[in-house]
Amino acid sequence: MPPMPSRREFMQVSALAGVGATGAAAAAEVAENPARQARLAMRRGDWKGPTVYKAPDYVQCNLVVLSRRLAYDFLLYCQRNPKPCPVIEVTDTGNPEPRLSAPGADLRTDLPKYRVWRRGELVEQPHDVTPLWRDDSVGFLIGSSLTFDQALVRAGVPRSKEVWVLNTQLETVPAGPFRGPLVVTMRWMTPAQAVIATQLTGRFPANHGAPIHVGDPAQIGADLVRPIYGPPVARIPKGTMPVFWACGVTPQKSAEAAKPELMITHAPGHGFITDLRADRICSP
Amino acid sequence: MPPMPSRREFMQVSALAGVGATGAAAAAEVAENPARQARLAMRRGDWKGPTVYKAPDYVQCNLVVLSRRLAYDFLLYCQRNPKPCPVIEVTDTGNPEPRLSAPGADLRTDLPKYRVWRRGELVEQPHDVTPLWRDDSVGFLIGSSLTFDQALVRAGVPRSKEVWVLNTQLETVPAGPFRGPLVVTMRWMTPAQAVIATQLTGRFPANHGAPIHVGDPAQIGADLVRPIYGPPVARIPKGTMPVFWACGVTPQKSAEAAKPELMITHAPGHGFITDLRADRICSP
Repeated sequence: MPPMPSRREFMQVSALAGVGATGAAAAAEVAENPARQARLAMRRGDWKGPTVYKAPDYVQCNLVVLSRRLAYDFLLYCQRNPKPCPVIEVTDTGNPEPRLSAPGADLRTDLPKYRVWRRGELVEQPHDVTPLWRDDSVGFLIGSSLTFDQALVRAGVPRSKEVWVLNTQLETVPAGPFRGPLVVTMRWMTPAQAVIATQLTGRFPANHGAPIHVGDPAQIGADLVRPIYGPPVARIPKGTMPVFWACGVTPQKSAEAAKPELMITHAPGHGFITDLRADRICSP
Repeated sequence: MPPMPSRREFMQVSALAGVGATGAAAAAEVAENPARQARLAMRRGDWKGPTVYKAPDYVQCNLVVLSRRLAYDFLLYCQRNPKPCPVIEVTDTGNPEPRLSAPGADLRTDLPKYRVWRRGELVEQPHDVTPLWRDDSVGFLIGSSLTFDQALVRAGVPRSKEVWVLNTQLETVPAGPFRGPLVVTMRWMTPAQAVIATQLTGRFPANHGAPIHVGDPAQIGADLVRPIYGPPVARIPKGTMPVFWACGVTPQKSAEAAKPELMITHAPGHGFITDLRADRICSP
């Protein structure tokens, strides 16, 4: 009988539904890849800065770490809100290794900067969270729109000078204690670029997929006065159109309602770089 | 300010990532829809037969009911194996109403036939499971390939006379006690139809998406001698090509390993009909 397809081949076929998990087969191939090199530099403390536009061929993730006690409600929150919370991988309880998407990596050390939240309040931004990891810690890796920026460039849509992160008045679907507004990213484009970007990002469901809105920010109640990230916006420049994608900061906002005793996330712009190839974790 | 998009609009935008949850807005519109009529007939006991090719415009689901104690590991199993286990909705603990995909429905009565499993053994096939529902029961609705059959017909691919359900030698990715082989459906097509079907079903990630294999059954270890459903297959007819999709029976097999004290599923071919429009819970 011919050889079975590897689990990697099988899971790549699975990519469209929002998971690009790979198995041990991936580990050998990627032993010296740029993603792993980047993670090791972070682990050594040599890389503490942003990951924006770094290792652009690899899927970058937002990180959320919660206790096992809250993990079911949070996973359910992600299932009910897949646009802001596309789950790439959930680690086994207590194990800091995301063995499907980055075998050998360690979520306690392999991000450049973290945020530590206690009862919903941001208390510190360390570069290593080893002392905070517990036997019941569960790590959630959530797809990021940083992943499709490189594909946009290849399709002729230049990088936005600014990417805003904004609150909206759209509510997510609650699960247990997790609830709150949808947070979005906003990019400015020409209408022609917006059409290309809509088609292209629709192929990346594991990275927030197609825009949730184009045009008038007021229609989704986007807060341009007090952006979560980026400068306040007085008006949209003539000839450009704002395009909005669901954002991985949404689960951080939902935790403000849930007030978990301890939550660890990435710091904005300081993501986790997986071994997954961005061009394979998408619809072909 | 213009009105906010309804949650329905928002979640329809979300459909590609594997969830087509709708909100209360959907309830009014669909008050007298064929899906609801079908469910009420089942609830009254007037419809005990299969749902195959019935209410073809609506998303049909496989059902798995487990206790809350096993729900996290099972949801994680689904997240890790999205091709066989695309989750359409998970009900709130103890509540038999899938309020996002079929407001007003009751998972205890609104399927035509169930299977009851105790410690992994099939023990009965009732038409109503109200006496078995508990305060800690959680219902999982999992997408079914029956949903895309109608779209295939419209695209010129005729209904297969036979749809087999087969074991394979591909292993799923375990989560907690859930593990086991990937189960697949097999349809026979001409090569030209297989090309159309591959493209078309890739647009339906919430219903198993693109095929996991085309051609030689031996390459995935598909068991043609002892099908789970359908007659044994001696040989593939000349001029046709077998096409394989991940199948929602996979989680039932995984429960044979997990041996939950109590598990309720749909009976094969007797699915749950949601209010979700098949042509909207897909990539446009």
